[in-house]
Order: sequence, then structure tokens, then C-alpha cells
Amino acid sequence: MAAFELRSIMEQNLEHTISLLTRTPAALDALLRDLPETWTLRNEGEKTMSAFDVVGHLINGERTNWMPRARMILQFGETREFEPFDRWKQIRESKDKSLGQLLDEFAGLRSESLDELRALNLRKEDLERRGRHPALGAVTLSELLASWAAHDMTHLHQISRIMAHQYREAVGPWKRYLGVLQCAGHSSPK
Amino acid sequence: MAAFELRSIMEQNLEHTISLLTRTPAALDALLRDLPETWTLRNEGEKTMSAFDVVGHLINGERTNWMPRARMILQFGETREFEPFDRWKQIRESKDKSLGQLLDEFAGLRSESLDELRALNLRKEDLERRGRHPALGAVTLSELLASWAAHDMTHLHQISRIMAHQYREAVGPWKRYLGVLQCAGHSSPK
Repeated sequence: MAAFELRSIMEQNLEHTISLLTRTPAALDALLRDLPETWTLRNEGEKTMSAFDVVGHLINGERTNWMPRARMILQFGETREFEPFDRWKQIRESKDKSLGQLLDEFAGLRSESLDELRALNLRKEDLERRGRHPALGAVTLSELLASWAAHDMTHLHQISRIMAHQYREAVGPWKRYLGVLQCAGHSSPK
Repeated sequence: MAAFELRSIMEQNLEHTISLLTRTPAALDALLRDLPETWTLRNEGEKTMSAFDVVGHLINGERTNWMPRARMILQFGETREFEPFDRWKQIRESKDKSLGQLLDEFAGLRSESLDELRALNLRKEDLERRGRHPALGAVTLSELLASWAAHDMTHLHQISRIMAHQYREAVGPWKRYLGVLQCAGHSSPK
């Protein structure tokens, strides 16, 4: 099945975007649910997130970022700026919940977001509509949707790095072969 | 639940290692199964892997790397060097399979590996036993097991980066906020 190779970079495709966005909650659930807290509550040092915190951040994205911004583009175009995204908000709000509760909440919110997205029946010309980002300026709906999918991947990338970090000494001399341990914590998604 | 924070780096702990190793096949399955091939067969450019290739590489690790090396440490200590690990071998061998088949194969092999690992009933003194890596020299069984878990995370990190890469142009100006797109493909696990 891998006999052909696809090297070119993809354009945002609504079905492809939705197919990836659909899978993230189940992937995080399979990875994190009931894992010992020693994996899920540790972070990479001061002012960094744990896997638990990242799930809280993803919940906040569903509530205040992705579909709310998509709606703003369709309703107001460039005439109204998006609300800035506070990446630490949900982390403060999720302190008293369990990781299992957060995973359920993320799955429920994502499912609602995607139901709403599908119900919009977006056409090609809708995807080209523009909104206004407070720091980035004019952005298209298509770019917003592609960023939503890539943002999921940024945080899966971050979670795998956070967890590997916990064993950075335990791996001994293998450290130099494990690419994830060379990753310099570059995630700063907004 | 996140009221306490755990900042110190963990030592390899057999139960924690197994708990993470157990979850990787299901996490990859939830992320990748039935995803359009445009996500799973594309790579990051020449001599890089697609998500499909990475699953093949993980299968090869189960067959020829992790438990075979653990057995060698317990049987021969430092008197016999491990076989070098050919990271492209399984990729060549998996060309005619579907991703679904590879995911099933990985899950089956991982389950067998962990059954065997549990059956060894390793004691603390076993974990300190040493073997000989062809390039790294003396390594302990504990380091091997920690590296197995961190190797899973390296490849989850890689897969999330490969998939995000496909949308690196589609995200438009958000590119600068998406940490995964700054990751310079540093994985070279052996």
C-alpha cells in the first residue's frame, strides 16, 4: 500500500481535516487514561505543562478558540478581531478534576465542535473568507481549520516529549539516539 | 488532582514502563486506523518516514530489538554484543501490507513482548545487569527498558510531526505559533 509516495505538501481539505480532528480525543484517551499519575502530572520544568495540563488546554481551545473563531469569520469577516486565546485559562480551571474527566470533556466538546462544523456545509468560497487575528492579521477560514488540526498534532508532539522527558536520565547512554530528547520544547501555540 | 506537582526526573520503574508500553498500540490505532492515506503515506521529504513506515519500524523493534536484547542481557551479560538494529528493514518488508494489518501486527507483537517481560519476574538486581551495545558499550537492562518506552514516545513525537508537516503551508500565518512545525526532524533512533 505504500508503493506510491506522496511528497507534495497538502492543501487544507475539509474532509481530511475533520478525519484527523475526529481521532485526537480517542488517541489521547488510549494513551493517557489510567496511566500512573507519575507520567501524567509531571511537566518539563517551571512554566511548562504536564500531559494533564495539555488536555485542559485542548478543552479550552474547543470552548473559546476554534469554532468560535470560525463563526466570527462567517458572521463578521475582518470587521471584528478574534478574542485573544488565553492558553493557561483552562489549566487553572481544571485543577480539581481528574484526567479521566478531562478526557471525557474533551471528547464531548470535540464531537460537538465537529457536528457544528459539518452542519455549516462549507463551500470552497466560504473557506476563503477572511477574519482578523489580534496578532497575525488577516487569516482565512481554511487556514484556521488547518491550524486546528496542526494544533492537535503540536500537542500530541508535546505530550510525547513531556512523557519521554521523565525518562531522560533513566535511558542512560541511549539518550543520544532518542530524537524526542533532543527536542527543545519549542511549542508555544496560541 | 493536579494540585501537587512532580518535578523530579523519574527512575525507570518496571510497572510504569509496562503501563506506558501497553498503551502505545491502542494510541496509534486510534490515531491512524482508516485515516485517509494522504495523512499516513506522506513523509517529510527524501529519506524520511511516513506514519505507515514508523509503524513498520515499531514492528521491527518488537521482533529484533527490545525483548531479544533483554534476553541477551539475562543470558549472556556483557559477553555477547547485541545485533545492530536495522531501522529500515521492516519498512522494506511491510510495503505490501495495509496500515490496518501493520497496526494489528504491532499490537499482537507488543502484547506478546509484554507477556514475556512480565513472566520474567525481574528483581531489582536483574534490572542492574549489563549487556553490550555495539555502539554504546555497557548498558543495563533497566536502561534498555526505559529506552523502549522513550522510543515509543520518540515515534509518537515523529508521527505527530510528520502529519503536521503536511499542513505546514495550509496553516498560513499560524505557522509561527505551532511548535511542531519548528521541530527539525531530529529523530534518529537506533
